[in-house]
Formats: sequence, C-alpha cells, structure tokens
Amino acid sequence: MSLTEKGVEVMGLGNIIGAAQAPRQSRGPGGARAAARRGAPRPVRGEQAAPKDEGPRLLLSKLPPLARRWGSAFCYSFCRDSQGLRSLLCPGPARHGEEGPGAASPLEGGGGRAGPLPGSGRPARNSNVLRLRSGRPLPRSAPRRSGTRPAAAGTVRRGRGPRREPRPPPPRLPVLSTCRARIDAETRPREAGRARRAAYRTDEGQPWVLPVVKKVEQMIANDHSLNHEYLPILGLPEFRAHASRIALGDDSPAIKENRIGSVQSLGGTGALRIGAEFLRRWYNGNNNTATPVYISAPSWENHNSVFVDAGFKDIRTYRYWDAAKRGLDLQGLLDDMEKAPEFSIFILHACAHNPTGTDPTPDQWKQIAAVMKRRFLFPFFDSAYQGFASGSLDKDAGAVRYFVSEGFELFCAQSFSKNFGLYNERVGNLTVVGKDADNVQRVLSQMEKIVRTTWSNPPSQGARIVATTLSSPQLFAEWKENVKTMADRVLLMRSELRSRLESLGTPGTWNHITEQIGMFSFTGLNPKQVEYMIKEKHIYLMASGRINMCGLTTKNLDYVAKSIHEAVTKVQ
Amino acid sequence: MSLTEKGVEVMGLGNIIGAAQAPRQSRGPGGARAAARRGAPRPVRGEQAAPKDEGPRLLLSKLPPLARRWGSAFCYSFCRDSQGLRSLLCPGPARHGEEGPGAASPLEGGGGRAGPLPGSGRPARNSNVLRLRSGRPLPRSAPRRSGTRPAAAGTVRRGRGPRREPRPPPPRLPVLSTCRARIDAETRPREAGRARRAAYRTDEGQPWVLPVVKKVEQMIANDHSLNHEYLPILGLPEFRAHASRIALGDDSPAIKENRIGSVQSLGGTGALRIGAEFLRRWYNGNNNTATPVYISAPSWENHNSVFVDAGFKDIRTYRYWDAAKRGLDLQGLLDDMEKAPEFSIFILHACAHNPTGTDPTPDQWKQIAAVMKRRFLFPFFDSAYQGFASGSLDKDAGAVRYFVSEGFELFCAQSFSKNFGLYNERVGNLTVVGKDADNVQRVLSQMEKIVRTTWSNPPSQGARIVATTLSSPQLFAEWKENVKTMADRVLLMRSELRSRLESLGTPGTWNHITEQIGMFSFTGLNPKQVEYMIKEKHIYLMASGRINMCGLTTKNLDYVAKSIHEAVTKVQ
Repeated sequence: MSLTEKGVEVMGLGNIIGAAQAPRQSRGPGGARAAARRGAPRPVRGEQAAPKDEGPRLLLSKLPPLARRWGSAFCYSFCRDSQGLRSLLCPGPARHGEEGPGAASPLEGGGGRAGPLPGSGRPARNSNVLRLRSGRPLPRSAPRRSGTRPAAAGTVRRGRGPRREPRPPPPRLPVLSTCRARIDAETRPREAGRARRAAYRTDEGQPWVLPVVKKVEQMIANDHSLNHEYLPILGLPEFRAHASRIALGDDSPAIKENRIGSVQSLGGTGALRIGAEFLRRWYNGNNNTATPVYISAPSWENHNSVFVDAGFKDIRTYRYWDAAKRGLDLQGLLDDMEKAPEFSIFILHACAHNPTGTDPTPDQWKQIAAVMKRRFLFPFFDSAYQGFASGSLDKDAGAVRYFVSEGFELFCAQSFSKNFGLYNERVGNLTVVGKDADNVQRVLSQMEKIVRTTWSNPPSQGARIVATTLSSPQLFAEWKENVKTMADRVLLMRSELRSRLESLGTPGTWNHITEQIGMFSFTGLNPKQVEYMIKEKHIYLMASGRINMCGLTTKNLDYVAKSIHEAVTKVQ
Repeated sequence: MSLTEKGVEVMGLGNIIGAAQAPRQSRGPGGARAAARRGAPRPVRGEQAAPKDEGPRLLLSKLPPLARRWGSAFCYSFCRDSQGLRSLLCPGPARHGEEGPGAASPLEGGGGRAGPLPGSGRPARNSNVLRLRSGRPLPRSAPRRSGTRPAAAGTVRRGRGPRREPRPPPPRLPVLSTCRARIDAETRPREAGRARRAAYRTDEGQPWVLPVVKKVEQMIANDHSLNHEYLPILGLPEFRAHASRIALGDDSPAIKENRIGSVQSLGGTGALRIGAEFLRRWYNGNNNTATPVYISAPSWENHNSVFVDAGFKDIRTYRYWDAAKRGLDLQGLLDDMEKAPEFSIFILHACAHNPTGTDPTPDQWKQIAAVMKRRFLFPFFDSAYQGFASGSLDKDAGAVRYFVSEGFELFCAQSFSKNFGLYNERVGNLTVVGKDADNVQRVLSQMEKIVRTTWSNPPSQGARIVATTLSSPQLFAEWKENVKTMADRVLLMRSELRSRLESLGTPGTWNHITEQIGMFSFTGLNPKQVEYMIKEKHIYLMASGRINMCGLTTKNLDYVAKSIHEAVTKVQ
C-alpha cells in the first residue's frame, strides 16, 4: 500500500483493506503457455484479471533496452560484448563447441542445453525462449543450401549480412542463472518489505496481541519442563484434539464415533495444501489430477494456486457472488453443483466468506448440503474466522457441523491466525471426518507421508499457545472474550459505516455492509470508484471493491463514509 | 524404540541411535506399481531395503481375515453382509445402479467410480485394486456369450457357481473412505506416539535446551513491542541475513557482491523442498522433471522422498560409502560425477554426513569441486550440523564456502534444529548463491510463489530466537559455547568408545569411530550383529549399523563397548 505518510498518520488507515495491487493469479509452473496446455483455470469471477503473464524469459538484465525488446538474435552478441559473461542468458552458447552427444550448438540451430538432456528423449518445452534454442538440433552433417557455408562457431547468422568474426568458445558457467525466472520485478511492481496480509486492528489502528496469548506465552517461557524435541509428524496431540473439537463441537457425532483425524498444519494455507495433496493422490482414484475442483467466484486468491500446485488440472469456479443484488447467487451456486461431475471437490468457506463477507443462511446451507449429498460432491471447508465472524464459536461452525451431522465425509482446513491473532506462528489444523476410525487412520498415515516431505513436523510455539488456552477452562473463557472483543469491534464498524452512508443519503442500498460478516466487505464500488478512493482519498480497497473492515476506526469512520459518498456520486 | 523399561532406567539408553525400524523409503504416490511406471528410484545403497510396498488396496478393515487375502471377489459380498455399509470398500458397487454417463456398474464389468470421471478421458490407474474396477467399462449393450446372462445388479460372478440373489442397490455414500490408502498400520508397525527423530542428549540422556535459547525466549516473552503480525513470505529479514552469513562467512565474496538470497524455511526439510520445487520448475529448462538428481549412497532417507514429491522423475545415487574400507569411496564418487549428465543436481552433505559420519577431506572436496565445475553439475548442499560436527562453525562450513569461492552457483539448505536445539520450532534457511543480484532477485521472486502455496509465510518464534542470538555479540559468543559443549561431548564419546573397543581387543579396526564426525557413526556391524545388539542387548542401531553417538553416556559406555564386542565375536 502506498499510503502517504500524512494519510497514515492522520487517518490511521494503515490497513484499511489490503494491497492496492490486484491479486496475483498463479497458473502454476511453466508460464502462460504451459498453463494453456494444462487448460488454464478460468479467472475467478469478480476478481480483477491477473496481470498479463508474459511467461518465462531469459534473464535480460544485462542487455541494453533495445536488445531486450529484440531479444533473441541480438541477445548473444550483446551479452558477450558487454559482459564477457554468458551464463545469464544462453545455456546453449555457453556450451558452444562442446562435443556432448547430440549437443549441436544452438548457434548452429541446435537445441543447446535449454532443451532436453542428451538421451533424455523428451522434447524441449521452451516455447517462449530464444529461437536460438529451438530445441531442434541441427546435426553438423545436415545438408546445407548450396552457396552457403554453415555458420562458424560463435556467429549469429541473420540473412545475408556481413558475417561476424568467429568468437572463441565462451567460458562455461553453471546454469542457475539461466533459470528463466519471470521478470516479476518489472511486470508486477511490489512494495518493498512485508507482503500485504489482512489482519485485525484495534481502534487505534494497531496490531493486537490477545491478552490471553500474552499470558500463555509467559507461562510457556517460564515452564522449564518444556523442551524443543521434535513434535510428532502430525503435530502436538493436545493441539490437534482441541482444534478439531473446536470446529466440530464437543457433542459431535463424529468425535463420539472416533472417526475424526487431525493434522497440525502451517496455518490455513498449510492445511489446505496437505488436504489438497492427499486428495490428488488418493481421492477418486489414484493420482487423479482430473477431478474437478470448484472454487467460489470470487474467493481468496490463494485457493486456486494451492490446488494447482497440489497437481489438480481442472480448477473451476462455482457461482457465488451476485453483483447486481449484492448477495449470494444461491440459484447459480446450486445449479453449478447440480451440473458438476460427481465426486468433484468443492471449496466452501465455513463462515465469513473471503472476500464477499456473504455467507449462506442456515437454510441455504441445508439446500447446498442436499445437492452435494445427492451428487457425491466432496466438501472441503476453509474455516479461517471461527469466532471472529459473529463472536460465537458455535455459530461460526454451524455449516461444518451441519454437514457432519448429515453424514458427510469432509475436510476442514482451520486457521488460528485471526481468532488467536497468531498470524506469524502459523497455527492451523486440517480436520478429517471419515467414515470410521480405521479409515481415518489410513488417511492420516498417508498424510504423514505428505507432511514428511513438506515441513517434516510442524512448529511448536503457536500450537502450544492454542493447546494451553483451549485445555484450560479459565483461559478458554478469556480467549472467547478476546475473540468477542475483536468480532464486536468489527460489527460496530459495520453498523456505524452503514448508518453514516444512509444518513448522507449515499445513492444505493447499504444494508449489505451489516449483512455481510467477518473481516471483509464487498462495498459494491466499481473499479473506477475504487480508483477514485485510492488516488483522491488515499483509502485502499481492492479493485473488486473489497474493503477490510478492520481498518475502520472511530476516528476515520466519517472520512471513509464521506469518501465513499463522493466516489459514488462523482464517479459512475 | 521398544527398550525395556528396565533397560531405559538402568542404562539411560533412551536414544542411543534411532528407531529400530528400517527407514521408510517412500517411492512417491501411487504405490509400488505406479513407482515402477515412473522408474522407481534405485534403493539407496547401504540402507536396508524398504519394507515391501504392497501398493494401494481397498480398505478391507471390515472383512474377515480370509477375505482380506482373497480380496477382490469376496470383498463386496462380505462387506455388505457384515456391515450393510459399502463406502469403505467399493466405490464401484456404491454406485451400482446409477445412471451416470458411461457409468456401467463395475459388477457388470464396468469401470465404476474408481476409474476416471465420465468424460475425463484418462485411463484408470488402479492397477492394484479390485478386478471389479478394471477401468474398462462394459457397456450394457455389450454382446454376451450365448448361454449366459449378464450378472444381475449386485451379484458377483465367479465361474459357473450358483448365482447369488440380486441385492438391492446399496445406499450411496461419499467416497473419502474409498481412498485406497495403504494399510500402513498393518504393513509397517510403528511406535505409538512421537516419530523417532535423532536429537542431542546430555550425559544424563536427557534432551537439552541450550541456555542461550532459554535466555532469549525469556527476552522475547518479555518484549512487549513484539507482535504476531505476518512475517514476509520469505521470512524474518534479520534471520535470513544472519543465517546465510553464518553459512557463507562474513567475508564471503558472494555476500560482498550482493548475490545471495535467503528463504526462511521449515527446518532443513522445508529448505530442501523449496529448493527442489524451484529447481524442478526453473532449472535446466522449464518444468524439467527429467534432470537427474543424485543422492549419496547412503543418505538421509528423506532426501529421496523430498525430490520425488517435488516432481523429479530421475533420482539416482552416487557412490559414497565404501563398506569394505569403512570410509569414503572417493574414486567411485568422482567417477559417478564424471559420468553424470551435465547439469545434474548433486545433493552434498556440507559436513557430518548422515548416516555415515564420513566427510571428504578439504583436499577431496577440491577434487569434487573440480569435477563438478567441469561437468556443470549443480551443488545442492544440505547443512544440518554446522558447528555441531567439529565444534567450529567455520570448519563445518568449509566445503560450502570453498564452492562459493570457486564461483559456483549453489543452494544450501540449512537447519538450525541441531545446533540451536530448536528441533520443534522448525528453523531453517535456504541460501541461494547466484551469479548476480538481479538474478537472485528473480529466483527469490519465484520462490515466493512456491512458499505462498506451501506454508504462505514461515513461523516466527524459532527465527526470532536465532536472529536475536546471532545479532548480539554476547549472545552469539554464548551460543558458540553451547554448540561446542554438544560437539565436545559427542567427540568425547567417540574417543571413549573407540578406546574401549581397542582395549577389549574387539576384532577389526575402530579408528573410524573417531574419524567419523557428527551425530552418527557407521559402526560396521552387519545386520545380524545389529539384530543381536537389539534383541540381546537392547541397544538400538539401524540395520545399516548406524549408531547415534548422542545416545552414549559415561554411564553406558562400558555396556555398549562390551555389547559390540560380543556382537562382533559371537555373530558373523
């Protein structure tokens, strides 16, 4: 966010919603063309289209600007002339003159090293790189057109122009530098320093360490019976048990029947990833990367990337946000579920939908569950705001618990980042609800394998804090109070913002501000209005109109309301 | 470890070497046959062959033992009879009678749901499952042999035996349970509770929280200026800078030239994984999973799994341990490097090779580096014991620094688990040494993408402890003392064990005990002798003869020496 210093100082707008920049939509490895070959995920509706993916390119950092644009043919000669180094750019020319099998120099039209290793038998996939590295080796014995001589080693032939002097083979250099990492620094300007992540703020606009967390941290630091021995692969047992219990409820039939499992994970992201990796390997067949995965339109931008990187090839969206009525498009959602192939995986937001703040009502959840049961759709819940949304842990877990009571097998990725304010300790849990204990044990056994090659075993500190808190009635009660404090403040900001907008007579309806829930709200502002807010008012919203309610304070409410009023009345 | 209680009490043998069970060698997802199709990695030489991989099977938990062995044909009928439930076992029969497109019931020879989704066009890969789910759908209109009737819904046809009664379509149930997770609990008995991981022990056989760590933890708990806001994706900046500096040295040319990068990771495993994921995507072409990855024979068993799960298809071993001479097989190593395809990736142990404890001498490292440079081999160091091995941070980083001074681009996966005793806080760092700053920035930009879908941003506590320690001259000095304490105790145990064995006149030579370095030692005991040690003496070694020196104490040295003496003299 590029708030002016003055803006930050006066308004305390430090974290009003999130980065000004559009969310990055990763299409997985290999660049745009590889993504197209995979069948690139459709852009998540409602989100700004990802910046144009220019695909992998050579590192052209050392070239004059003209050569960067003209790339290929000049690349070699320029980089040699200006640097004497070539490893940054041309694995092919770097091996010019080498005698390796089939390794005709790319300067002679050969594949160079950017193609397959000799003998590997796989075609080069470098579709977006120098023509010098076409991947089609030209054997030295290839017939030549009469009247021409083969290009001498080290030369670049372009048409019939004067032939350059043959160059001596350049020094060979290792190839890490030739990794054609996208020139992200140029295509996607980023803020220096920390990545922008939405977090709770106090009414002073400050981060908040929950009092119960401070207390427990002191207890842990003073407990000399504790050590730092490795946790089990699946995590701290007390944490896992309590975390799943929090999600499912003490009286959960699944807990009673001993058919739940838990995997302590690195925040909600880690839980999603482990769950996704498991499903890709073991669900609906072995290694069935073709199972469709449905993500709401819109959704948290990282959902798509996680499932792509877990290996799924068919990521789709299901209708969710109805921009016209500023609410849930239930009919579209149910329709997409009816039409989804059986056994498709659906990512459901347990509460406080990110980014719309719009959740199905209990009755709507019933309808959703009915369709999912009939269609054999697999529910994968993302629960990042339990307690933080409504102030009630039970209420915010209502959807998950309903599905469990309906007999579903499901995953629930839980994050304790927001409701414990433990963002940077990466406290998460993947709750598995299976058919029976035996089945769950097998699932966990496979999850261990996945964890073992990812983080081996999870970090202790955050899990200890949460486990200590949840297992003590007194600390648990304190924690619930702290959570309610945060939830109530956000709810207050919602109602205050709405009432100001209505008092100002801002065109449109504003009940969605209070009907939505959680950290985020879809204001309904269009991209031009958002731009106005950012540039003229220094209030930072996503292009989608998403605002982070945590950034509102009693001090800036008036300013924000007036700014929205201006944006809506002045900009169409 | 199944030490008798008495054994533990009397001998303090709590952690003498490591789990009794053989290391698991994961072959990646999909079971044995899928691994074979991929070209399964050759077993790492010197390690006990992995337990037989029985591949994925249906969950047969509810079947009588006889049916488990006879699997397929009985499966359906038994599970129905005994349970009334079918989802655990038969995704095919679960959908018996369903009208989905192309979904002929597997009981009629159809593909069932274990195969591809209708229309997905991909062949089923379930080679090791019920014949009922062959993946070859039999259309209902398929011609029948004269004289036979098609199997009625719900029946199992076996030869010409009496036809069973047609059963009503079973209730449809979701399919998480049909994930054919390997029956690990049955094939690989495990200890309940924590996974066995090697860690330092005091002379009392206890875990040790470093005094400097306790001190810094108190400081952190009492520092009210700290909060829990998300770290940047790449981690805590102070940690990253100090961690890389520790590995490369303050006077590193790479640091001076600003061409290093760092990624805070989840221990050494996380660093290896992020590095492996990057290389698979961006090294030697795009998404070039065919680049050979060479791992020493033997090595830490998780190395193989990490690179498999990162997507590499061609994992090989390079010769390392010479069992006959109980030392480094330098000639074999160099030979394998000469023959490796150019640009292969080599996993090198920076010091204290796990499990052999045998490191190349400085001169031997020079020879290794020379070959690697000439052959364009990429060095990926695993540095888990810096300081812990010899007691000197600089000495233990000698190999890495030498390669850097020779101009290599390289990765170095660092773990602070052992040298800070912070096993369970998952403190690691991936140091990247590139050609120039620009190149490194691009590499880091790509690493951010990989981190974002794995753990999003790393955990704070451990990194804070390390950063605080490394950035304070006084705490840094204290830490080095603590590290030396651990290293010296292990070195003392080595020399004491050796001198006892030599005093006893135990057949063979025992200088390797003191020539090897770090936590582990390859005793040279053969599997039968190891079995004797375990069964008769309750001393736990790996089948490879690997012993964890940290498990030795002044109290048990005599017992261990005598036991080795017996094993060597009585068992051949």
